[in-house]
Amino acid sequence: MESATVLLSGGLDSTVLLHHVVKELGARPVYALSFQYGQKHGRELEMARWQARSLGDAVAEHRVLDLGFFRELAGGASALVAGGPEVPALADLKAADLDQPLTYVPNRNMMLLSLAAAFAEARGCGVLYYGAQAQDEYGYWDCTPEFVARINAVLALNRRRPVRVEAPFALRRKGEGVALGRTLGVDFAHTWSCYRGGERPCGECPTCIERRKAFEEAGLADPLG
Amino acid sequence: MESATVLLSGGLDSTVLLHHVVKELGARPVYALSFQYGQKHGRELEMARWQARSLGDAVAEHRVLDLGFFRELAGGASALVAGGPEVPALADLKAADLDQPLTYVPNRNMMLLSLAAAFAEARGCGVLYYGAQAQDEYGYWDCTPEFVARINAVLALNRRRPVRVEAPFALRRKGEGVALGRTLGVDFAHTWSCYRGGERPCGECPTCIERRKAFEEAGLADPLG
Repeated sequence: MESATVLLSGGLDSTVLLHHVVKELGARPVYALSFQYGQKHGRELEMARWQARSLGDAVAEHRVLDLGFFRELAGGASALVAGGPEVPALADLKAADLDQPLTYVPNRNMMLLSLAAAFAEARGCGVLYYGAQAQDEYGYWDCTPEFVARINAVLALNRRRPVRVEAPFALRRKGEGVALGRTLGVDFAHTWSCYRGGERPCGECPTCIERRKAFEEAGLADPLG
Repeated sequence: MESATVLLSGGLDSTVLLHHVVKELGARPVYALSFQYGQKHGRELEMARWQARSLGDAVAEHRVLDLGFFRELAGGASALVAGGPEVPALADLKAADLDQPLTYVPNRNMMLLSLAAAFAEARGCGVLYYGAQAQDEYGYWDCTPEFVARINAVLALNRRRPVRVEAPFALRRKGEGVALGRTLGVDFAHTWSCYRGGERPCGECPTCIERRKAFEEAGLADPLG
């Protein structure tokens, strides 16, 4: 049985992925890794902790790494990080921003995958599962299948324990993830997508709108909705 | 004039590189970035601070990022990190360890280059200078020209401000770096190579032996020597 690390943000995709890896792929042991990178709110990480605990012994370790340096590195530049600008409503995004939204954090996913690959390598995992999806609402260069392929080209140079990044949802529609999550018994009330930090999801930011579409596509009601 | 970020460890190569970028390439502004990743000693970082200050206004910012998460990620596995095993003398390294020495930190250079590329991108730098050399005493997979090329293949996907990693010393012998440093007026007394944390360099660890050879090749005396 292959051991695996799963990147777990506490959002919809990574939560479904964790359940998929544990229940369907049967990897053991499974390690889950989350990042505190100065998000404007802690809701996602609460959900990540809840989901990892809900799987009991199947998750050997869930670690939340504190990336305190993130703000110093690139903080003020991104709407996702405390100290940055407001998260815009999707409707307010200008066409010029569609190639790189305000919520972009410079080189974020390369940093996170590099750290996660180190975490996985140190624990003897051959595979790192990553819930990225090719975005259709707006584009991040570091969320594409080509990006993952090139990250893997770097990691493949490792002479002893190369870690391979698998992004099994990269080409799926978000609705398919919701449908899969349902068959796996995922409790969607304990997932968080909204970029803003309110008590309830705002319903207007880009991820709220994606989430709504995903549930619509799957023909399900969002318990947070 | 192109702005640039230089990765500055405080060792021989990155120090010469910083002076080279400032004095010969004439990049402006120049940013220097160092990492505190739980090294067993702080000598290198003291040297990095000294070198950056010695260049006055030519270095617009020198930042030492505290990567406190490093130990949690992979700590006990490496002889370079506090809590890990002893740094071995070169003479004690077994042939079996030559492809990946005890001082290896899982995926270290991919992590550091990813962070540095984010730092550079956030500051509008198109180029990140990296003092890596192809090692001849022992081998790290993440210190090769092929590794840098594949990192650049990832970064080239950035749609707005791709950062390119340049490793101008990758194929030079270490002695050439010392010779170059001399013509640039580098104060080698303020550089640190030894992996161990004594008052004086130990003279036996792999980097001490490399450093000695480099000064010998250049026909110079090491002021720390």
